[in-house]
Parts: sequence; C-alpha cells; structure tokens
Amino acid sequence: MQATRLDQQLRFIAELDKLKGVERMISLIGGARRENSAEHSWHLAVMAPLLAEYAPAGLDLARVVTMLLVHDVVEIDAGDTFAFDAAGAADKDERERRAAVRLFGLLPADQAGELRGYWDEFEARNTPEARFAVALDRFQGLLMNRGNGGGTWKIHSITREQVLQRMAPIREGAPALWSVVLTVLDEVGLSAS
Amino acid sequence: MQATRLDQQLRFIAELDKLKGVERMISLIGGARRENSAEHSWHLAVMAPLLAEYAPAGLDLARVVTMLLVHDVVEIDAGDTFAFDAAGAADKDERERRAAVRLFGLLPADQAGELRGYWDEFEARNTPEARFAVALDRFQGLLMNRGNGGGTWKIHSITREQVLQRMAPIREGAPALWSVVLTVLDEVGLSAS
Repeated sequence: MQATRLDQQLRFIAELDKLKGVERMISLIGGARRENSAEHSWHLAVMAPLLAEYAPAGLDLARVVTMLLVHDVVEIDAGDTFAFDAAGAADKDERERRAAVRLFGLLPADQAGELRGYWDEFEARNTPEARFAVALDRFQGLLMNRGNGGGTWKIHSITREQVLQRMAPIREGAPALWSVVLTVLDEVGLSAS
Repeated sequence: MQATRLDQQLRFIAELDKLKGVERMISLIGGARRENSAEHSWHLAVMAPLLAEYAPAGLDLARVVTMLLVHDVVEIDAGDTFAFDAAGAADKDERERRAAVRLFGLLPADQAGELRGYWDEFEARNTPEARFAVALDRFQGLLMNRGNGGGTWKIHSITREQVLQRMAPIREGAPALWSVVLTVLDEVGLSAS
C-alpha cells in the first residue's frame, strides 16, 4: 500500500535527524565545538566529487557518495567510537550491526536492503568505491586535525605511528593523496617516536 | 601544476567546514538546538534516493544529490535567510551571488565552473532535477516543523497561506508528495485563516 510505504519512509527520514546529535571526538576547525556525524557525512559527500581525480579510474562516483551519506547512520543507536579507543572498538561491530537491523528496518524491505548493502560495502571495503569512500573518511579527519594544529592527536597523545596506521586506508583507496598525510604529520610536528 | 591544484581543493574543503556554523531558523526535532546548514544539506541528500520514486521518471538522481550537497555553500558568506523574512529576501540574491564568486573561486577553474553550474541550476529551477531538489529542500523543512508540532510556523505566527506558498515548489517538483503537505498542516492545526 502506497500510504504505508510513504509513512515508513517519512518515519526513517525523521529518525535520521538524530544523527545530528551524535558527537564525534574531532572539533570543528577553530575549536568552537565538536563535530557531529551528520555534518561530517555531508563534508565527506561533497569531498567525493572534488577529489575524484585522485581515485582509481572508472569509479562509480554516485555509489561512493551514497555510501558516504549512509555510512554513519548506525551511530544513531551505536554512538561514535573514537578511532583510537581500543576498548570501544571491541564491541563496535556488534553494536553497529544491531543498529543497522533496527534503523534500516524502519524502511520498506527493498530500500532497507539497498541501504544495508551500501553500509555493508563500506564496512567490507572490497570494492574500489568502498576503498575510496573509507579513504575520504580518514582524509577528512586528517584535514580537520590539520586545521586544529594536530587536534585530537595532540589532545590524546596519539603517536605518528598510530596516525599512520589509522590513515593506511588512504594509501589503499586514494594513493595519490598519501603524500598529503605525510606532509600534514610533519606540519603539526608529529614526528617519529 | 598538480600541487597547486590540490592545494586549492584542500583550501576549499577546509573552508566548507564553516557551513557547520551557519544556523538556520528551524530546530532539530525535539528542539535541542537550531539546525545548521551543513547537517541540513546532508539530510536532504539522503532523502533524495529515499524519495526518488515520487520524482518525475527519468531523473538524473546523482545530479540532484550533488545539487543538494552544494546548494547552501554560499551561506558561508551570505548567512541563512529565514524563509518568511521579506526584508532579508530583498538583498539575498546579491549577497549569495557575491558569496558564490568568492567561495567557488577558491577552486581550480574547471571545478569552480562545475559547482557554480550546480548552484545556478538549483536557483533557476529550470530542470526537473532542480525542481525536485528544491521540492526536497521545502519538504525537509516541513518534516522538521511537523516533528516540532508546527515549529517555526507557530513561533513566528506564519499562516497556512504563507506555508502553502512556501511549499508550492513541492507541487511542481514532486507532486506525489503534495498531499503530505496538506496532511501536516492539518495535523499541526494550521487551518485556513
């Protein structure tokens, strides 16, 4: 029934509003407040076409953008897990999987399956589109911390080795941007330990 | 030169961060705080594929999404103008045009032209993609105010006629969603004056 289908879609769209209240560890450039996952997702999605020339040729860019738009939706239930939080990482997958079932499950079955597919693809990183999307996710964090003179890396005493490990997906998904990672780490004074 | 081109792109991406600090009049559902234009743009961009079935057939959805992602970027300089602010509307076009020149001008010329093209298309509303994008922009405001029991319409004593006029682009760009507008206005008790 058309009415019920539209009701489900509108309910999901209203639920999405909650992602604006999920705080990440990273601050806006200038430090006014912490970034939330909705505006972070927007930033990533705009970056995709702007940096597409550094992605492997032949990428389906629309697929990358949709993946970036939905990749953090599960945080509505699961919250944001700080990149360098080993304890939080332990049960992150399970928390996010439960969230995916509930949240995408609000939608009509065909759309639930489609969005779940995008999220699974991002998590699995087994397509060039997903690898580029994950690279941009890391790269945005790098640019935000650059804008804040080291940001969360300095606040939480993260080492250069830890950042390089966190940024490794950039080398894989957007190798042409890797030199920026090294430049930024030098720039903010994160030297080898 | 590759380095310079990438520097321009990174400078623009850092500048985009400021859209997260541009407040709209509308509040998050529940009223915790006002919505900003970056998270608003994200919300719209996710809505596009979810509601694509209510758009005229044959639409280029990727084009709609990119348009929605960049349609408010000019607000970094021009600020958000309240939908029902007649005084603000008077010089809105001129403020936004100046902003478009400066902001998109940070990018390499080819990308500046491309993004400017998306923004011009959204503003001109002379393609089905632009008309659907503008319809979603109005529809998201409607859903937010619905979630807040009338929201900014009630706070600012906006009449049913004013809302209907503001929502008119939905009738044009996504006519299948028009009945929702009427339902919501009844629901929140905005009756004809």
